[in-house]
Amino acid sequence: MYKIEQIEGGVCAATGFFADGISAGLKLNNNKDMAFIYADTLCDIASTFTTNKMAAAPIKHFKAKGEFKTNFVLINSKNANAMTGIAGLKDIEEVLSHLPSQVNNPVMSSTGVIGVRLPKEKLIAGLAKFDLSQKNPTAAAQAIMTTDSFKKEIAFKVTLSDGSFFHIGAMAKGAGMINPAMATMLCFITTDADIASLKMQKILDDTVMTTFNAASVDGDTSTNDTVMLLSNSKSGAFDESAFEDALYQVMEFLAKQMVKDGEGATKLVTYKVTGAKSDDEAEVVAKALSNSLLVKTALYGEDPNWGRIASTVGASGAYAKEETLTISFDNVCVYEKGNLYFNAELEPKAAAIMKKDEFTIYCDLGLGNGTFTAFGCDLGYEYVKINADYRT
Amino acid sequence: MYKIEQIEGGVCAATGFFADGISAGLKLNNNKDMAFIYADTLCDIASTFTTNKMAAAPIKHFKAKGEFKTNFVLINSKNANAMTGIAGLKDIEEVLSHLPSQVNNPVMSSTGVIGVRLPKEKLIAGLAKFDLSQKNPTAAAQAIMTTDSFKKEIAFKVTLSDGSFFHIGAMAKGAGMINPAMATMLCFITTDADIASLKMQKILDDTVMTTFNAASVDGDTSTNDTVMLLSNSKSGAFDESAFEDALYQVMEFLAKQMVKDGEGATKLVTYKVTGAKSDDEAEVVAKALSNSLLVKTALYGEDPNWGRIASTVGASGAYAKEETLTISFDNVCVYEKGNLYFNAELEPKAAAIMKKDEFTIYCDLGLGNGTFTAFGCDLGYEYVKINADYRT
Repeated sequence: MYKIEQIEGGVCAATGFFADGISAGLKLNNNKDMAFIYADTLCDIASTFTTNKMAAAPIKHFKAKGEFKTNFVLINSKNANAMTGIAGLKDIEEVLSHLPSQVNNPVMSSTGVIGVRLPKEKLIAGLAKFDLSQKNPTAAAQAIMTTDSFKKEIAFKVTLSDGSFFHIGAMAKGAGMINPAMATMLCFITTDADIASLKMQKILDDTVMTTFNAASVDGDTSTNDTVMLLSNSKSGAFDESAFEDALYQVMEFLAKQMVKDGEGATKLVTYKVTGAKSDDEAEVVAKALSNSLLVKTALYGEDPNWGRIASTVGASGAYAKEETLTISFDNVCVYEKGNLYFNAELEPKAAAIMKKDEFTIYCDLGLGNGTFTAFGCDLGYEYVKINADYRT
Repeated sequence: MYKIEQIEGGVCAATGFFADGISAGLKLNNNKDMAFIYADTLCDIASTFTTNKMAAAPIKHFKAKGEFKTNFVLINSKNANAMTGIAGLKDIEEVLSHLPSQVNNPVMSSTGVIGVRLPKEKLIAGLAKFDLSQKNPTAAAQAIMTTDSFKKEIAFKVTLSDGSFFHIGAMAKGAGMINPAMATMLCFITTDADIASLKMQKILDDTVMTTFNAASVDGDTSTNDTVMLLSNSKSGAFDESAFEDALYQVMEFLAKQMVKDGEGATKLVTYKVTGAKSDDEAEVVAKALSNSLLVKTALYGEDPNWGRIASTVGASGAYAKEETLTISFDNVCVYEKGNLYFNAELEPKAAAIMKKDEFTIYCDLGLGNGTFTAFGCDLGYEYVKINADYRT
């Protein structure tokens, strides 16, 4: 057995990790726009990146290094360093060359506007403001925000049955959640768990599938999406189940925070799909629902228009039948295997659920044992406003 | 050689076709909501329906009849008769049983809210208002509208080199064009061309692919989508090339009208993708662009944010490379194979194109000979408003 407690400290919660965020002048009004994570010993790295064919320069730079350990991550917002070719890679090298000598194999991560060269003079000047002994995780979490309306960080202490314990902390950014994967998400996780480096990547990959990817569409990702896990093993403590559980809680929390912060979003909706012919088919349906504009706008209008749910299920490509489908909003069943329950009595009950900030839409396809849960938000006027004016 | 001239008359332009639209009381304020197309002889039928697994009752009713000829199509708006099970099929039978005796094998088509039983008493009462000798194509085109802001009809006279001629006319509805295929589109085409019944279906299928499906995503269609072609051969005239050309012009015109009438749309944008590894890959890219919310909102904001174009190309799943990609807005090239052309001089030129009502975004992938052209519109506040409030 083990115990997981939420604690303060974000990416600095684990022993030996430091972080801060400063203003390098990329954002207006001295808002923070550059952050670091520093570790006082070299860390193992596990990572997942965008599948976008136009992956940004920092991702290419990371991948070109092959196997390595690092003790430093530099992150900037406001400029994605994407579609910048060889010049973008050289810009990274130049910026990183100005780091102090205790930094080893530094990596960089960027988010912001695509197709503009990195303002490297500003970044290099900003490096002088860094103090690697600082533990300001919240400043770092603020510095990586773009259209996010709030910073996203979390940390847990995990105590094992023998009394030993380790920490795991993280920060993330991401808010363009209409099709979640289409706006950049960054997530940096630090831990002092004594995890074997070979296990880290597999556990990270598995957890991404049920958290960040549950709020997204495979293969349809931004140029800069990055999830990175750094481990320094300093605690000496480890238990695989406990670590998996804690990592899941970290990433699920951050994924839900991103959906809640969806541009202009007012609701967090969970889509629980069951009864599909397979888990893959359930995933197709759940993601089709969480990405459907007609569903999202109905959510915003707080209109229990379950016909759009049914139509989206039918259009998803997964096997589905009118005669076996059941749809519920929380505990209110609006359609069951051909029975139109929707009447003057039921509609207000369903409408009341639609007014909640968080609720669940259940879709049972009635065909098999496949299940998947996805997270989504509504689409309101603010989304249009934010995205129509993004660069200005 | 042949000559194609646009003429008046919509679905009544071809010899022997009659149509009208009346109010049966489904829409408020006596707005027209029920239409017919009647032919004074039996017609061959070609048709294409939604691939949605929740296909509406009228589509199931049609398909269950097998091979047949008809001389009557009944269309209602405001109620989709979808997700209504066996009851929905029986409702159709009951409504159609009240038609006059000169009607043979009548078919029905519906569009509107999903999951509500057909108000058959109103429809049956409405049938009494029909006068099958009427030629009011515009009234019919108005009656089939839902969120459409204007009626959509077109007709051509096609004169062949020997002086013989035939007519082709059509009406359509469809406006939910954010992902075009997710809102119902109906299209009814009538012709007196002397086309062999066996050829009709193939020509219709091929033309749908480059017109309505070019404004849509395969397999992601509403419960009621229908394209139907009726031919009575009365002209005695036919030429395959001329017919194909005329049918393409009819359907391309209506597809573009639907995109222009996209809910809240202010622009019609054509996406010409070239240089893909195959035509299929070009289609994937063109449809990804025309369906991307980040692209659509940038269009609405009139922001020449070509980075979103590049990112969407990269996320489409098609093979693409930063080093071979070229992007232009009309004749203004903003990105060419790694060259960032976007500067203070170019940006106003690109921004000026974005302000136009119609323009073309060219994407050359630089990898092969695959091409595809898709049509799309922008996404504005009105889309959210229309869809958040749809049922009310």
